[in-house]
Amino acid sequence: MFHDLFPPGIQHALDLAGIFVFATAGALLAVRKNFDVFGIVVLALVTALGGGLFRDLVIGAVPPAAFGELSFFVTPLVAAGIVYFLHPEVQRINRAINVFDAAGLGLFCVTGTTKAYEYGLGLTASAALGVATAVGGGVLRDVLVNEVPSLLRDREMYAVPALVGATMVAVFISMHSLNAITTGLAIVTTFVLRLLAMRYHWRAPLAWNRRSSVAEEP
Amino acid sequence: MFHDLFPPGIQHALDLAGIFVFATAGALLAVRKNFDVFGIVVLALVTALGGGLFRDLVIGAVPPAAFGELSFFVTPLVAAGIVYFLHPEVQRINRAINVFDAAGLGLFCVTGTTKAYEYGLGLTASAALGVATAVGGGVLRDVLVNEVPSLLRDREMYAVPALVGATMVAVFISMHSLNAITTGLAIVTTFVLRLLAMRYHWRAPLAWNRRSSVAEEP
Amino acid sequence: MFHDLFPPGIQHALDLAGIFVFATAGALLAVRKNFDVFGIVVLALVTALGGGLFRDLVIGAVPPAAFGELSFFVTPLVAAGIVYFLHPEVQRINRAINVFDAAGLGLFCVTGTTKAYEYGLGLTASAALGVATAVGGGVLRDVLVNEVPSLLRDREMYAVPALVGATMVAVFISMHSLNAITTGLAIVTTFVLRLLAMRYHWRAPLAWNRRSSVAEEP
Repeated sequence: MFHDLFPPGIQHALDLAGIFVFATAGALLAVRKNFDVFGIVVLALVTALGGGLFRDLVIGAVPPAAFGELSFFVTPLVAAGIVYFLHPEVQRINRAINVFDAAGLGLFCVTGTTKAYEYGLGLTASAALGVATAVGGGVLRDVLVNEVPSLLRDREMYAVPALVGATMVAVFISMHSLNAITTGLAIVTTFVLRLLAMRYHWRAPLAWNRRSSVAEEP
Repeated sequence: MFHDLFPPGIQHALDLAGIFVFATAGALLAVRKNFDVFGIVVLALVTALGGGLFRDLVIGAVPPAAFGELSFFVTPLVAAGIVYFLHPEVQRINRAINVFDAAGLGLFCVTGTTKAYEYGLGLTASAALGVATAVGGGVLRDVLVNEVPSLLRDREMYAVPALVGATMVAVFISMHSLNAITTGLAIVTTFVLRLLAMRYHWRAPLAWNRRSSVAEEP
Repeated sequence: MFHDLFPPGIQHALDLAGIFVFATAGALLAVRKNFDVFGIVVLALVTALGGGLFRDLVIGAVPPAAFGELSFFVTPLVAAGIVYFLHPEVQRINRAINVFDAAGLGLFCVTGTTKAYEYGLGLTASAALGVATAVGGGVLRDVLVNEVPSLLRDREMYAVPALVGATMVAVFISMHSLNAITTGLAIVTTFVLRLLAMRYHWRAPLAWNRRSSVAEEP
C-alpha cells in the first residue's frame, strides 16, 4: 500500500536484530526479579514488541507486525529460551547487552519513524512516534514489574539519542534523501550517542533551580 | 463480515458468563483495597473487558465489543453492584469465585482465539492473542492497583491452562474440526487444568539453576 | 466523514485549552517527583493526550488527533517548557491549577462524548468513552509514576462530575438538542460540580458496611 523507503529485506533484518536484543534485556530483568518461566517469556515479548505494537495501533496497521509476522513473535521466544538456560553467562556479558540495547534503540527509532511516515503521519508526528517505538517496550516492561520507568527517573539520556536519530530521519525524508546510507547514518549516530552517554555518564538536567536534595521522595 | 465458527448466540452467552465472573473478581479486589464505589466499578470494568478490548484493538475490530455491545458494558456494572452490597457474602464464597474465574479463563481463551482467527490472524498469532484475551484483564487490574501482575509473580500456572486451551482451538481450526463439541472440549480442558493447578499447587519453574533464595527482592 | 455536532473552530479551541491545563498538571507532578527535563515532557504529553489517544484508538480514528494535529502535540511541549522554568510560581498558584483542571475535565468529557457519537458509538458507550477521555490521561500519568491512580483511591469524586457532563451530552443528543448552548451547559455543570466537590470535600462512599478501619492496606 505504501512506497517502502528502503528495501524490505534489510528493514526486516534490522527489526529482528532490535527485537532480539530488547527481548534479551527483558528476559534478564525477569530472571533478576525471580519470575517463573512464563514471566520470563512475557517480559521478553513485551519489551521487544511493545513499542512496535503501540506504533502500529496508532498508525492503524492491522494486524500489527507483532501479530502479523511470525518471526517477530518467535524471536523473543528464542531470546527467552537462551536466557532461561544461560542467564549467568548472559548477565556476565552485561556490558555487551548494553551495547546491543543501544543498537536496538538506533534500529527502532529509525524504522519506527520511517513506518509512521509511510502510513501518512506528518514529519514531527513520525519522529515522535519513532521515539515512542524505541522506548515504548522498555516503559511497558518497567510498568509491569512495578517500577517507575527508568526513562523518567534515571536521568540517563536514554531518549535523547533516539530523538536525534528520529529527527535525522525526518530531515532526510523532507530533503528527499532518505536512502540506505542516510538511514545507516541515523542508526549509527543514535548508537554512538547512546554509548557515549553511558561511557561518560551524561545526565539530563532537572527542572530549572531544582536540586536533588529537595526531592519529595526518599 | 466473517464466517462465524460457532453460533453467535452461544458465543454471546459464553462471553457474558466470562465477563461476569471476571468483573466479580475485580470488584472484590477493589473492596479489599478499600476503593470507593467508583473504584469498584472501574476495576470491575477493566478486569472484565480489558483483555477483550486489547484483542479488538489488535485485530482492528471497530468499535471493540466492550463499547459496541451494551450487554458487555452493563454486565460488569451488575457484578459491581452485587459486590458493593453483598461483598462479605461474596468473599465467603471465595472458592466459588475461583471456580468461576477458571471458567472465565477457559471461555475467554477459546473465544479470543476464535475471534482473532476470524479477523485474519495466523494460527500461532490467534492462539497468542487468545491467551492475551484471557489474562489481559487481570494484568491491567493488577497494574492499576499498583502490584506486579500475579501472572508474572505467583508461579501459579495461570497462563498455562489458557495456553493449552488456545492451542487446542488452533489445532482444531487447522484440522477443520472446530465445532460446538471441540470448542466445549477446549473450554473444559482449560477449566479442569486450572482447577487442578490450584488444587495441587502446581508451580511453574524458575529460571534454570535459580533458587528463590537468590532473589534480588525482599 | 461525520457531521460535526458543533463548529470545528470552537471544538479545537476547547481541546487546546483542556490539553494545556492537563499538561501543566502532569509537568508539575514530574517536577515534584524530581524527574529530569525529558520526564517532565513525557508526563505532560501523557497526561494531556492519553485520554484522547485511548478514545481515538477505540473509535478507530486514524491517525489519532494526538498524532494528526500538530497543535495538540506542541501545546504540551509549551506547558512543559513553562513549568520547567517557572515551577515555583506555578506551584504557588496550585489552586488556580485545580480550577483549570476542573475546566479540562468538563471540556474533555463533553468533546470526548461528542466525538465518540460522531464515530458511530451508541449513546451509553459514547458517554462512557467521554468519561474515559476525561480521566484517562490522569490514570496513565499515575500508573507511570507508580502510584495507584488517584481516581481509584482518593474518594475525591473526580469522575462523578465527568459522568454527569457526559450523560447530559448523551441526553441532549438523544433529544436532538445538542448545540453551542447545551454543550456549554454540560461543560459548566461538570466544572462547577468538580469545584463544589473540592470546596466541600465531597467523598464517594466505600462499599456498603465497609469502614476505613478495616482496610487491608497500611
